[in-house]
Amino acid sequence: MDLAITLDQRSATPLHKQLYEELRMAILAGRLKPGERVPSTRALSQSLGVSRTTITQSYEQLLSEGYLRAATGSGTFVGCQAPDELLKSRPVEASRPAVARQEARREIELSRYGASITDIVPFEPPEPEMPISFKSGRPALEEFPLDLWRRLTLRHYRANDVSLLDYANGSQGYEPLREAIAGYLRRSRAVTCEADQVVIVNGSQQALDLIAKLLIDRGDPVAVEDPGYLSARRAFLAQGSELLPAPVDESGIIVDRLNSKTFLKTKGKLKLIYVTPSHQFPTGATLTLPRRLDLIAWAEKMGVMIVEDDYDSEFRYGSRPIPALQSLASGDLVIYTGTFSKALFPALRVGYLVAPAPLARVFARAKWLADRQTPMIEQRVLADFINEGHWERHLRRMRTLYDKRRQALVHALETHFGDRVTIMGENAGMHLMIRLSGKFSDDEVTRRARLAGVGLVSARLYYLGESRGDEFVLGYSGLSERKIREGVRRLARVISS
Amino acid sequence: MDLAITLDQRSATPLHKQLYEELRMAILAGRLKPGERVPSTRALSQSLGVSRTTITQSYEQLLSEGYLRAATGSGTFVGCQAPDELLKSRPVEASRPAVARQEARREIELSRYGASITDIVPFEPPEPEMPISFKSGRPALEEFPLDLWRRLTLRHYRANDVSLLDYANGSQGYEPLREAIAGYLRRSRAVTCEADQVVIVNGSQQALDLIAKLLIDRGDPVAVEDPGYLSARRAFLAQGSELLPAPVDESGIIVDRLNSKTFLKTKGKLKLIYVTPSHQFPTGATLTLPRRLDLIAWAEKMGVMIVEDDYDSEFRYGSRPIPALQSLASGDLVIYTGTFSKALFPALRVGYLVAPAPLARVFARAKWLADRQTPMIEQRVLADFINEGHWERHLRRMRTLYDKRRQALVHALETHFGDRVTIMGENAGMHLMIRLSGKFSDDEVTRRARLAGVGLVSARLYYLGESRGDEFVLGYSGLSERKIREGVRRLARVISS
Repeated sequence: MDLAITLDQRSATPLHKQLYEELRMAILAGRLKPGERVPSTRALSQSLGVSRTTITQSYEQLLSEGYLRAATGSGTFVGCQAPDELLKSRPVEASRPAVARQEARREIELSRYGASITDIVPFEPPEPEMPISFKSGRPALEEFPLDLWRRLTLRHYRANDVSLLDYANGSQGYEPLREAIAGYLRRSRAVTCEADQVVIVNGSQQALDLIAKLLIDRGDPVAVEDPGYLSARRAFLAQGSELLPAPVDESGIIVDRLNSKTFLKTKGKLKLIYVTPSHQFPTGATLTLPRRLDLIAWAEKMGVMIVEDDYDSEFRYGSRPIPALQSLASGDLVIYTGTFSKALFPALRVGYLVAPAPLARVFARAKWLADRQTPMIEQRVLADFINEGHWERHLRRMRTLYDKRRQALVHALETHFGDRVTIMGENAGMHLMIRLSGKFSDDEVTRRARLAGVGLVSARLYYLGESRGDEFVLGYSGLSERKIREGVRRLARVISS
Repeated sequence: MDLAITLDQRSATPLHKQLYEELRMAILAGRLKPGERVPSTRALSQSLGVSRTTITQSYEQLLSEGYLRAATGSGTFVGCQAPDELLKSRPVEASRPAVARQEARREIELSRYGASITDIVPFEPPEPEMPISFKSGRPALEEFPLDLWRRLTLRHYRANDVSLLDYANGSQGYEPLREAIAGYLRRSRAVTCEADQVVIVNGSQQALDLIAKLLIDRGDPVAVEDPGYLSARRAFLAQGSELLPAPVDESGIIVDRLNSKTFLKTKGKLKLIYVTPSHQFPTGATLTLPRRLDLIAWAEKMGVMIVEDDYDSEFRYGSRPIPALQSLASGDLVIYTGTFSKALFPALRVGYLVAPAPLARVFARAKWLADRQTPMIEQRVLADFINEGHWERHLRRMRTLYDKRRQALVHALETHFGDRVTIMGENAGMHLMIRLSGKFSDDEVTRRARLAGVGLVSARLYYLGESRGDEFVLGYSGLSERKIREGVRRLARVISS
C-alpha cells in the first residue's frame, strides 16, 4: 500500500507528529476507511524513508486515540470505533490552500451531445429481477459451454506469448478472428466480404456508435424502422440526427412509404437508413425478397447507405437461412453489423461490422480513437471457437433448444388466449411479438404481470409514432419451457381476473 | 456450416441443378474458398429439406468439374484446381437483379468527424519491429504474473455464476472493481473519491473519447500542454475542438502563460484544460506544488474543467508519491483518469475516470451509448487482483525493475554522450526525454538508429508549435538492461560516425 503522505524534513514540527496528523486526516477525510489495513511500521518506514521509531510513535498515538486498532498477529487497521460524528464529517480542512476547499458547486456545462444524453439514455434503476422475465435478447446462459471456453482461454494463457498482452497491430481487430467471421458470414449469410472489410467492435452498440459518428452530422436526417430498435435510435439521436420513422408491417419495412414526400425531399441530405431485415426488431417480420430489392433500388436512387443490423440472424426455425440484404446489393451500399452477445453471451462484448474496404479502414481509425482496440484474449479465444467448429455446433444446439422454447411459448399462448392473441415474428430469433385483445391497457397488463412475478415488456417503448397499445415483446430464449408455461399461465390469470 | 442457399421448389429447374448452380456461384464468387470443407450430403439434405439423392447428384457434378474434391474419410472440400481465371474473377452475375451488380463506386459522404479522421489518425503501417525499440509506454510484459492472472480467471469460470456472462447491472462498471480502484486512489494518490465517482472504461483512450463527447462542441477551444500527449489531442480534434497550446518547461505546464490574452479571451468558451501533472508527457516534468495551486486557481477563475491524466503515476523513483492534482482542488473541478494498460498490460483494455458523482452518472450513460459496458471477466479478475494485494505487490516489483532499467539508461547515456546529452523527466514513469546536441537533425538520427536496429522516437511528433528538433523520447520499461546498454552504444556509434 502506498500512502500519499508528505512529510517535511525541514519543518519545526517533529516527523512523528506530522505523520500522526497526515494519517488522522486521511482517516477523517475517508481516504482510509474503517477496517482497512495500514502498512506495517517496517514497510512504512522504508517507503517514507524515516526511522521505524518515528512510525511507531505516530501509530501508538493513533492507537491510543482509537483511530487505529491492532489485531495481534495480523496487523494494524483503521479503527471502527472512532467517533461517528468525525467519521461522517465531510473532508476536513487539512494543511491545504483555501481554494482547495471551496465547496461552491459549479454548473458543469456539457456539450450538446452531453446535454441530450439524459433524455436519450434515461436513468434505469436496476430492475427487481422477476421470477419469470420475458425480457428479450437473453441467451440461455446456463447452456453456454463455459468449460470449453475456459479450456480455450487457458490454452492462450499457457502459450506464454506476450503478444497476447501487448497492443495489437492496428485497431481493426485480430486478423484470424476477422478471417473466421468473414468465412462464417460468406457461408451462412451469403455476405460478400473479405477479412479486410471486417472491423471488430465491442458489441453491436459500438458499431452503431461508430456508424453514427462517421456518417451523421448534427441535424442530419436518418431513416429508422418504426417500431424499431431503441439503442440504434439512441445512438443516432445523441449524434444530433433527426429521425424519420418508416412504418413496418408483417413483411418488414414498407418500402413504398419511403417514396413519400417526407423521405424524397431529404434526398442528398439523408445519410443512412437503419434496418433489421432478417427479424425485424421488435415485430419479428422478415423482409420479403421483393421489398429487399425495392429497398436496395430506393437506397441506390437516394444515395443512402443501408445499415443492416443482423442481430439474431443465427436463429431461424423451420425454414432455411435467408441471405443477408448485403448479399443482394452492390458492394458499397450496405454496412452490415452483427454481434456475439446474443448467440454466445452479452458480457463478452464482441461484435463486428462489415463495410466496403475503404470505409472499413475509416472505421478502424474511429475505433482507434474510441478505445484503440477490443481486448485481445476474447478475440483469440473466439477465433479458435469459430475455427474449431464450436461456434456452428453451439448454434445448432441453441437452435434446437430455442425452437422448443418457442414452440412452448406459442402453444401456451394459444392455449390460454385462443383467438385473443395474435403471434408475430415467431419464425426466427429469440423473441416474438404478440397482440393481446382485452379490457386492459398495456401499462395495466405489465403492472399486473409484475405483481404476479412476470416481467413483460410493452412494445410501446419501441414506437416513435403512436403505438397500438396492445403489443408486447416476449423473449423466450433464456427461459425454460416450464417457466414459459408458468409465465403465460400467470399472465392469463391476472388479466382475466 | 450453414450455407445460405435458396432453392425454389416450384421452379421448372430441377433441385439438383439449382443446388449445383448455387454452389458453383458460391465458389466462383469466393464465398466458398479453395480448401474449405463443404457439408456432408446428409447434413445438407437435412438443413435444406431435400433428399440426399438430390445433394449427391449436385456434388457429383461439381466433383467431376473440379469445383469440389473428395478426400477419402475426411469429407468433401472446395477444389484448389479450379481454373485460375474463374477463381480470380470478380463476383459473377448470378440470378440476381441488375441493380445488385452495379459496380459504380459511390462516394461515401462522411460526417465532419469522419472526414477529419484521416488527418487526425494517420494510417500507420505496422512498423518493422526493431531489435531494440525505445518506444514508450511498453510494460515489461514478460514479468507480468500471467500464471496468477490465469488462476484468478479460472476461479471465476469455475464458479459457474451465469451473471459473469450476462449484461451488467448498469454501465458504470463492476461495483467491487470501482470500490477497489477508489480505495487504491485514496491511499496512493490522495484522490478524494468514492466508488460512485469511478467509471470503468476500456483504457484511457475511451476516457478521453467520452470526455471529448460530453464536454466539447465543434469549434470549442481546448487547452493542451505543448508538447503533449498525441492521443488526447486526436480525441479533442476529432470532436472539432480548436487546440490552444500551453507551453511546458522543466516544472510542467507554465501556468503564467495561461494568463496571456490568447487564453483569457476564451473565458466562458474554454471548456477544459488537459494536463499530465505527475509525469508530463513527453517531457517527464513533474508539475510543482506552486504551479498546481496556480493552475487550480486559474481554472476556478476561468470556469474551466481540468482533465488530469495520471497515466503512469504508479512509478516514481527515489522520492515519495506526489498526491494527485485532484486532491488539492475542490470536488467538481477535476476529471481524473488512469489506466491499467501501463502498469499491467495494454491488451487488457481497462482504465477508469473519476468525476464528480453527478457527472460520473452522465459518463455512465455515455459509456452505455458507446458500448454498453466493459467486458465482465476482466473486471472481476482485476477486482480480485487489487483486493488480494497482487496489484500493489506487482507495482513494487515493477518499480524496482524499472528503476534499474532507468538507471542503466541514464548511465549509458552519460557514458556515451557526456555533456552532449541532457536528460529530463527521469524521476518517474516509464520513459524519459533527452536533448542531444550534434551535427544531425532528429530525422537523420532516427533514420541512422533504425539502420542500426534501434527504434527511437523524435519528440517532434508531440509538438503543436515549433519543436527544437533535438529531442527524443526513450521508453525503457520494456527493455532489459543489456538491451538498453546495447541500444545506447549503437546509437552513439551511428551518430558519431
